[in-house]
Amino acid sequence: MTQSAPLPFPSAWRDRHLLDLERLQAAELFAILSTAEQLKALTDGCRRKISLLSGKTCANLFFENSTRTRNSFSLAAKRLGADTVEFSSAGSSVAKGETFVDTAKTIEAMGVDWVVTRHQTPGTPHLLARELGCSVLNAGDGPHEHPTQGLLDILTILQHRGPRDWQSASLDPSQLLAGMTVAMVGDIAHSRTARSNIWGLKSLGADVIICGPPTLVSPRWEEIGFEVAHRLDDIVERCDVLNLLRIQFERQQTRPFPSVREYAALYAMNGDRMRRAKSDILIMAPGPINRGVEITPEVADGPHSVILEQVTNGIAVRMAALWLLSGASDIAASESNPPR
Amino acid sequence: MTQSAPLPFPSAWRDRHLLDLERLQAAELFAILSTAEQLKALTDGCRRKISLLSGKTCANLFFENSTRTRNSFSLAAKRLGADTVEFSSAGSSVAKGETFVDTAKTIEAMGVDWVVTRHQTPGTPHLLARELGCSVLNAGDGPHEHPTQGLLDILTILQHRGPRDWQSASLDPSQLLAGMTVAMVGDIAHSRTARSNIWGLKSLGADVIICGPPTLVSPRWEEIGFEVAHRLDDIVERCDVLNLLRIQFERQQTRPFPSVREYAALYAMNGDRMRRAKSDILIMAPGPINRGVEITPEVADGPHSVILEQVTNGIAVRMAALWLLSGASDIAASESNPPR
Amino acid sequence: MTQSAPLPFPSAWRDRHLLDLERLQAAELFAILSTAEQLKALTDGCRRKISLLSGKTCANLFFENSTRTRNSFSLAAKRLGADTVEFSSAGSSVAKGETFVDTAKTIEAMGVDWVVTRHQTPGTPHLLARELGCSVLNAGDGPHEHPTQGLLDILTILQHRGPRDWQSASLDPSQLLAGMTVAMVGDIAHSRTARSNIWGLKSLGADVIICGPPTLVSPRWEEIGFEVAHRLDDIVERCDVLNLLRIQFERQQTRPFPSVREYAALYAMNGDRMRRAKSDILIMAPGPINRGVEITPEVADGPHSVILEQVTNGIAVRMAALWLLSGASDIAASESNPPR
Repeated sequence: MTQSAPLPFPSAWRDRHLLDLERLQAAELFAILSTAEQLKALTDGCRRKISLLSGKTCANLFFENSTRTRNSFSLAAKRLGADTVEFSSAGSSVAKGETFVDTAKTIEAMGVDWVVTRHQTPGTPHLLARELGCSVLNAGDGPHEHPTQGLLDILTILQHRGPRDWQSASLDPSQLLAGMTVAMVGDIAHSRTARSNIWGLKSLGADVIICGPPTLVSPRWEEIGFEVAHRLDDIVERCDVLNLLRIQFERQQTRPFPSVREYAALYAMNGDRMRRAKSDILIMAPGPINRGVEITPEVADGPHSVILEQVTNGIAVRMAALWLLSGASDIAASESNPPR
Repeated sequence: MTQSAPLPFPSAWRDRHLLDLERLQAAELFAILSTAEQLKALTDGCRRKISLLSGKTCANLFFENSTRTRNSFSLAAKRLGADTVEFSSAGSSVAKGETFVDTAKTIEAMGVDWVVTRHQTPGTPHLLARELGCSVLNAGDGPHEHPTQGLLDILTILQHRGPRDWQSASLDPSQLLAGMTVAMVGDIAHSRTARSNIWGLKSLGADVIICGPPTLVSPRWEEIGFEVAHRLDDIVERCDVLNLLRIQFERQQTRPFPSVREYAALYAMNGDRMRRAKSDILIMAPGPINRGVEITPEVADGPHSVILEQVTNGIAVRMAALWLLSGASDIAASESNPPR
Repeated sequence: MTQSAPLPFPSAWRDRHLLDLERLQAAELFAILSTAEQLKALTDGCRRKISLLSGKTCANLFFENSTRTRNSFSLAAKRLGADTVEFSSAGSSVAKGETFVDTAKTIEAMGVDWVVTRHQTPGTPHLLARELGCSVLNAGDGPHEHPTQGLLDILTILQHRGPRDWQSASLDPSQLLAGMTVAMVGDIAHSRTARSNIWGLKSLGADVIICGPPTLVSPRWEEIGFEVAHRLDDIVERCDVLNLLRIQFERQQTRPFPSVREYAALYAMNGDRMRRAKSDILIMAPGPINRGVEITPEVADGPHSVILEQVTNGIAVRMAALWLLSGASDIAASESNPPR
């Protein structure tokens, strides 16, 4: 473990929690994203360990199954030298009648610095942030938000299509993605990834198109000013970025379209549509991908796909979030307890 | 990770295992408790890491579900720089026909320094202590004992109600809690926590009252000299400490009382009973708590409750136990292999 | 964690993956085995930590239940200072429709250095080795191979019965076990352990006997030149080493012998057979053992049994494999990117 180079703490960041992207200002989004980029470089592309958060502990408190996001947070914490501890709902105290908040307070009392939480109920992380003294990170609250997924998607776009000097503090963060057209395609209704992307992209100036079956796209999006499309063919030629969402069969009571084949016919990104798209289109998917449903193998494995870069950027934005929240806690502590 | 300050090894401690509190002398209990207090201070309230046990490995071998106790042991080990490894019964070799002792010996052969074990059968840790060369810590053996839970409860009492200089070696440890009345309330029959508290409190001079429904309190307690009560109202005014046990529905074949409502009417600590209690009464619960059953929210969240401090002290006593057992092993090794 | 002494990198080792023993040369087997012996010494018998692989990360990707092998790999990684991360099939992205290769590529994109994998399908690790950029270690692919188990068994034999100077580079590795008769006894058909032992032992010059019920031993073994026996009594007097395999009831659709009692009568190593065996016979079992089936307690716990040493050697060979694969990757990287 090498000693970490000093990293400037961005003055725009003051929050001890990361709950959603909807309420973050462009300057705050920029603070996380540029910190993530620096940490990615300091860790040799998220592969090496630095001692930035050594001695601190990150607790994962997941009430929904997750391997990918949970491990991504754990690896991000370990890359910065922190320890991790895992709590899950199966076999835990919640099954013995304990309330969710009591479980979280008990974990906090064990001396953890961050609680990373996933829960099927929207707003749960916001509740915990009010009840706990430590930092809370939302790793997905029902269909509401999944802020680190939104951030990693946006970081990937910036790396490929942002201004060359996007990390420069001299640019207006609210215009970083101006002129860029990004479509979120698929199961918008059940997707916290869609919601976090939409708010974050909008704050940085992108034009967002929401594309999916009418049964999976609320008409509210159009009412509040977003472009809505019901056929990928109608928009594919105009898009700079496509973010292809997975159909979350496990969250659906009734099938919202006649068949997977019909869904794929209207929404799958395939070779035909690639040939009609811009020559530098960026293909993204939050994963896990369902080959042959929302994306065909030739597109998933093709030169425009940045799906695996998104995974690596997930480590980067989670390292940035853990470090910024911890720093904001330290600043708050030093201000309430000024040195004598 | 900061280099740890030298910590004096208490001469009263010689044991390589922590199996129960019933057979520990007052001086041994004092050795653990005062070491726990020092380690809590050295780790900034159990929140920071020191390198006291760096390079050693702690194995959790749990045959009953546990998140809280398992993670508390893991965090205690990590706070002192040790590594941890998790074994559980689900999907393990026991399901393939291996005996319990063979499983434990296999884990020991992987080079671990401590085995922390929970099992539904009383005496299992004692069996392992005879069969293994490494240290064994009992994390709960059926309804028998849960020694670290007893220790963390007693540490919490000492911090709040012990003599101001309770850590001073000049006091008689067997009188540390003299004059203090502590009631264990609720499901005594199924509670290893109750048993560990009872023996530990008695050794340090406290007066212990055992309070619960006749179906959940054996008459044997009275025969061997403990005060037994069947109504909380009969004793609440005299108590300095109440330790409110959870009804362990999952351990009961038949319901030992007519209804939860009736149980709560007789045994729940609520606002009415608080007003009749001593003005400095200490309210404890081993958790997870069932709000509205053994404790009402106003009491659980009120100023007399030290429930979350108990959780933090759990880290402290487990750090102390790991360090003391490891030191006793080192002493035994150096005595059997004197330097040439 | 002590700074590791410099360890010479064996020039015979060039591979970035460990997939099977069948295709390894004697010199490569020797490279792993002698490295394992050195790492065992450097870590005080696999009990202490050195910083050889500090900052690297090992991912366990297990699609079959495993506690023992998974933890052995994890402990080996931690002993060398690496971090570990656990993926399992339950609750993972595979359940959401992701392909096995996409899951593995996603894990690699999180920045891991090794993927340790177990899967019910033979050849899966070979597939991953072609698809991934990081190192792949086979921890068992169906009934095909389990190379680290074969290596730890062979290391145990070398330690007890190899030439006194077996680690010396002056010996011919293909003759290290010349003159040694080793029998694999039991359920050969379902045993990846058997297959890895057979190929590894053969490469180092041992005489291998394959012994088991005709329903569990393919006639192909005899056709390709191995001695096959169907009664332990026919061979027990000639053997230097017996490796007693567990009957893997969980892998069998139909019972391949009339009863466990009948199996034990023909194949169990018991006191009677011990008295007819060579006076220095070595008794091995990959574990978990079924006492009373393939081995009786007096043999399992007797002076000829090295079953627990095998477990410790498992840590040693896995440390060696992780280090060698990592070194081969570094060499490959430095050769493709020569220093300027």
